[in-house]
Amino acid sequence: MKSISDRWSRVFITSVSPRVYDGDWHIKRTVGEPIHVTAGMIVDGHDLLRAGLYVTHLGGATEEISMTPLHNDEYTASFTADSPGIYTYHIRGWIDRYGSWQEQYTRRYEANMPASELKVELLEGAALLKEYAVNAPVAAREKLLAYAKRYSNGDTAAPLEEESLLLARKNDPQKGAIQSDAITVEVDRKLAAFAAWYEFFPRSTSTVAGIHGTFDDAALRLERIRDLGFDIIYLPPIHPIGTTFRKGKDNDPTAKPGEPGSPWAIGSPDGGHTSVHKDLGGLRAFERFLKTANDLGIEVALDIAFQCSPDHPWVTQHPEWFKKRPDGSIRYAENPPKKYQDVYPLDFECADWRELWEALKNVFEFWIKRGIYIFRVDNPHTKPLAFWMWCLKRLRTKYPDLIFLAEAFTRPKSMYTLAKIGFNNSYTYFTWRNTKKEITDYLQELCCSNTAEYFRPSFWPNTPDILHEYLTSGGRPAHIIRYILAATLSPVYGVYGPPFEHVIANQHPDREEYADNEKYEIRSWNWNDPSSLQSLFKSVNLIRNQHPALQELRNLQFLKIENPLMLAYWKHTDSNSIVCIVSLDPFQVQEGELELPLEQLNLPNASPFQMLDLLGGERYIWQGRFHSIRVDPHVMPARIFQVLKRVRTEADFDYFV
Amino acid sequence: MKSISDRWSRVFITSVSPRVYDGDWHIKRTVGEPIHVTAGMIVDGHDLLRAGLYVTHLGGATEEISMTPLHNDEYTASFTADSPGIYTYHIRGWIDRYGSWQEQYTRRYEANMPASELKVELLEGAALLKEYAVNAPVAAREKLLAYAKRYSNGDTAAPLEEESLLLARKNDPQKGAIQSDAITVEVDRKLAAFAAWYEFFPRSTSTVAGIHGTFDDAALRLERIRDLGFDIIYLPPIHPIGTTFRKGKDNDPTAKPGEPGSPWAIGSPDGGHTSVHKDLGGLRAFERFLKTANDLGIEVALDIAFQCSPDHPWVTQHPEWFKKRPDGSIRYAENPPKKYQDVYPLDFECADWRELWEALKNVFEFWIKRGIYIFRVDNPHTKPLAFWMWCLKRLRTKYPDLIFLAEAFTRPKSMYTLAKIGFNNSYTYFTWRNTKKEITDYLQELCCSNTAEYFRPSFWPNTPDILHEYLTSGGRPAHIIRYILAATLSPVYGVYGPPFEHVIANQHPDREEYADNEKYEIRSWNWNDPSSLQSLFKSVNLIRNQHPALQELRNLQFLKIENPLMLAYWKHTDSNSIVCIVSLDPFQVQEGELELPLEQLNLPNASPFQMLDLLGGERYIWQGRFHSIRVDPHVMPARIFQVLKRVRTEADFDYFV
Repeated sequence: MKSISDRWSRVFITSVSPRVYDGDWHIKRTVGEPIHVTAGMIVDGHDLLRAGLYVTHLGGATEEISMTPLHNDEYTASFTADSPGIYTYHIRGWIDRYGSWQEQYTRRYEANMPASELKVELLEGAALLKEYAVNAPVAAREKLLAYAKRYSNGDTAAPLEEESLLLARKNDPQKGAIQSDAITVEVDRKLAAFAAWYEFFPRSTSTVAGIHGTFDDAALRLERIRDLGFDIIYLPPIHPIGTTFRKGKDNDPTAKPGEPGSPWAIGSPDGGHTSVHKDLGGLRAFERFLKTANDLGIEVALDIAFQCSPDHPWVTQHPEWFKKRPDGSIRYAENPPKKYQDVYPLDFECADWRELWEALKNVFEFWIKRGIYIFRVDNPHTKPLAFWMWCLKRLRTKYPDLIFLAEAFTRPKSMYTLAKIGFNNSYTYFTWRNTKKEITDYLQELCCSNTAEYFRPSFWPNTPDILHEYLTSGGRPAHIIRYILAATLSPVYGVYGPPFEHVIANQHPDREEYADNEKYEIRSWNWNDPSSLQSLFKSVNLIRNQHPALQELRNLQFLKIENPLMLAYWKHTDSNSIVCIVSLDPFQVQEGELELPLEQLNLPNASPFQMLDLLGGERYIWQGRFHSIRVDPHVMPARIFQVLKRVRTEADFDYFV
Repeated sequence: MKSISDRWSRVFITSVSPRVYDGDWHIKRTVGEPIHVTAGMIVDGHDLLRAGLYVTHLGGATEEISMTPLHNDEYTASFTADSPGIYTYHIRGWIDRYGSWQEQYTRRYEANMPASELKVELLEGAALLKEYAVNAPVAAREKLLAYAKRYSNGDTAAPLEEESLLLARKNDPQKGAIQSDAITVEVDRKLAAFAAWYEFFPRSTSTVAGIHGTFDDAALRLERIRDLGFDIIYLPPIHPIGTTFRKGKDNDPTAKPGEPGSPWAIGSPDGGHTSVHKDLGGLRAFERFLKTANDLGIEVALDIAFQCSPDHPWVTQHPEWFKKRPDGSIRYAENPPKKYQDVYPLDFECADWRELWEALKNVFEFWIKRGIYIFRVDNPHTKPLAFWMWCLKRLRTKYPDLIFLAEAFTRPKSMYTLAKIGFNNSYTYFTWRNTKKEITDYLQELCCSNTAEYFRPSFWPNTPDILHEYLTSGGRPAHIIRYILAATLSPVYGVYGPPFEHVIANQHPDREEYADNEKYEIRSWNWNDPSSLQSLFKSVNLIRNQHPALQELRNLQFLKIENPLMLAYWKHTDSNSIVCIVSLDPFQVQEGELELPLEQLNLPNASPFQMLDLLGGERYIWQGRFHSIRVDPHVMPARIFQVLKRVRTEADFDYFV
């Protein structure tokens, strides 16, 4: 906060929101989304204040928006960004000297003070208007001076004309104004805030079981995925895979001949992070795949994992980019006594770190130039935060459409910091939040605390690395429950599709992940199985797309439902109101009494309203606060209700008086 | 946050507390109170971190305190200030490179890795120790190099000796360290955080009814007030009172002959803000009064009201310090159409503002030099905040024992900002918070939010300006309830004593204040009425002084009691635990079931504990969570329980095995 003039200011800005509380980080918003700014501002005594919101748009032009006073010394205004990029805003406040004078004068006038007294006060108003006139545009100056003259001449009714106030406010020199620090807004395109992701391994797309699929095979899967309502295809790494210390089935330390290896063991003599595995058809096949996707209106996200197999070209071309042991050998990844000899970590602190960082940034640029604008970044928390700050800032300045998803399932402070320093989307602990209390507490933290200003969760019921016991034990109802929770609690969600839609949930005996894990082998999927969950995907994605309430993060509010195994929540925009009821029990029928806070939902107390179940299509007429809901998980464990404000009555007819 | 070296740091400080969230303001603490600092800190990967707390004490010496890791990437340490003044602290974090190496080495060693592999790793440890040795003191350097030599020679067991780790940590060059911004701590003496104030009008202390009392009369009242347990005597303004437009009884616009006027109409030909009313005995009598007070161990707080009666010497000596109307007359205080012709506000923005501000600061210094260190500042929110920032900073730098109480009953943002800019104590809305929900919500805000870092509430059940209907209608039980609430909810509280202790609560018909208001007339009080509330004052103040739990602000926690007219709360320190039960109903008997959270109170579930009612002296043996409490407001509307952990059993005897 600083005074605009060279002197102290009587005005004090006490708060500005939205902002991130614990540091000078960017808040995140999307194109077209109104940004509602509120400032607290005070002055000694009883003078009126005026506040302006100043928005610096892309290209540097500043927009000035007058702020409206609310209660409790707060002022508000909104702005909207029309393209992605970095915006800033700040607040300015000043004493409305003429307005304060005019308000006091009016009170004197209306209390019928003697004209002699009023005339003395008029001279003060005239002096103010003359001061305001000095730097006003010619037309306004003349009008201001005309008023000043009428005041000097004792025209006691003149200040009651609204024009004088409007003129003065428009030409106020804002003496003693004060200004807040600037707050930075990172504006992303909408897909960063509302998107459904679908993950699959392109090598598992051949129609012949056991044969390595190519990008041409994978391209055949795209239309269906688009029709299911997904926006983004996310592919695990597509690069050549190393053979040295290659891992076999289910992470066996020794691969058998013919085993394909893990896509995260990146690099072979065929190339590294800018090459495409030759069994996938190489770069040309990938480009064809990408064109098909884009023609279908679906985007492709690549997985960028900054680590190398011992066969990566960089190992020989740039040995200085890797950590050495004192005997000169490259240090492989370790968690002593465990060894991960198939992975060489990069040394971000090496003497040549500038060249390394540049090369890594160039990996992104290589793919950006080929049309990839969305990246899922593997384990960003094992690389220096300073690298990501540097890299993401440079890339997004040049390509504001980029979206980066941070794959960090690590401790909370690291995950939140990655979001602060520039990741647009973040994986979360959603997978491990399964009870009513766990889900409620976590969602309060994500949606209803300051976290929501910078951290955009992406909810995944499963990934190739994580298969939770809830899915393993709960079967199809559990899959439906977790899918609906992900897709309705969080505007951004994703699913590791093939095993999920087929409800294949065999857990590895030792690890919380899939058995027969696709990370280490080629699987074959029936992409058109009518008994799969694809119809659920389709209807839920359609509901999401048709209902703006499900496209926002910060509008979540939990409702009271009297059953510890049932969850109820409300999401709404000005014109769209959705109430979701989800049973968390995949086994038994559950019933609970829902309490609707009618006032908040803007629903009548004394007349009925309509609840439309968007999943099942049934309509219900409800009245009052309390409603018993019964859910059978083997039929459908959830209801997604659209709240329709009222039911027509005879009074709605024209001829009813 | 900034890197100590010239390069980027891998360490990230994610949060530091305590601090004020919404600006660069001071947190407030007291002498001798431990300041518990917690920092969030992360690094990429799995390296160990070390954190240091750096405290700059008075005089500029910096103390370094090693921080202890907690869970969730947090580190903690504490410090204590031993005299009042301004301290700062910051955090530094760095990677424990040797510690990380040693931890990984130990795991390899304990997994029985081949000696050949261990020896390669040992060379890395040796290199680190040699680097650490470079700038270590001679003795440490030799020891570090001796270890390095043993490592180089292949002594695989050497790194397991704890001494190497201790030596390395002590001499760590902290490469790549990062440092937080400094946070400022305003350390006050204890009386700023724990004090009982007693307000009275010295002119109402004569033993002869209707006669203007002097400071010599007033001095006779001091010993009793000290004996009742009060720490601070607060006097309304003691200066000469103007006669022009003097107000009569109950603010009548015209004073009758002989009426004494309001002490807030400051200044007469006898003097202004640095003079004492001659009917009070002048400055000499005041000095005698002050000596008596100090000899009794009680402090005196003066009321500083920066406004002038038309008769104040400044009006003629410094007309430039007052606002003029265009006709040249001095502008009196107004709220059009109301006029307050007995008060001239000072013009803090006048051309000579520097001289005026200096003169106002000198008013404080005049009284400081006479031994006054506590000031109640009248209506600070009608003077520029910039003035208070300037004035209080200069005064407290010179006199760190000063305590300023802000008399602002205005809007929340102004009150909180006055605390941020330097007022040590603040009046509150306590008077208007009378229901369970009102009290609970407000106290949560004051004690359990970030507000408590800078805003120190002073709770007043009444003032000469405010007599709430609750007191008027509820009589003696209401007075007892409000007094106990003030004194146990807030460590700093005060009472406008004489009418309160006599339960005189006649409200003025038009205003929320006392009828026959002492502001405008001399009253006469029976200071030794045995039926007054003085015995309550005495016992509550004694309880406060004996129980450290009641001397802290941020340790308040409300407990559940099943009665909307009863309030239960818990305050505790490590060794002292107090549970208060207060009925808010001054009329009827109330009964409610109290739920004690036994785990938090560190009480046994399966065995009894003792509750000692400090007000009544009764002891109770309780067991379990739920206890029914019955309170008769006409006997005593509250219980102040000390929780005594356990009741002895036969197992406590020595001979019980």
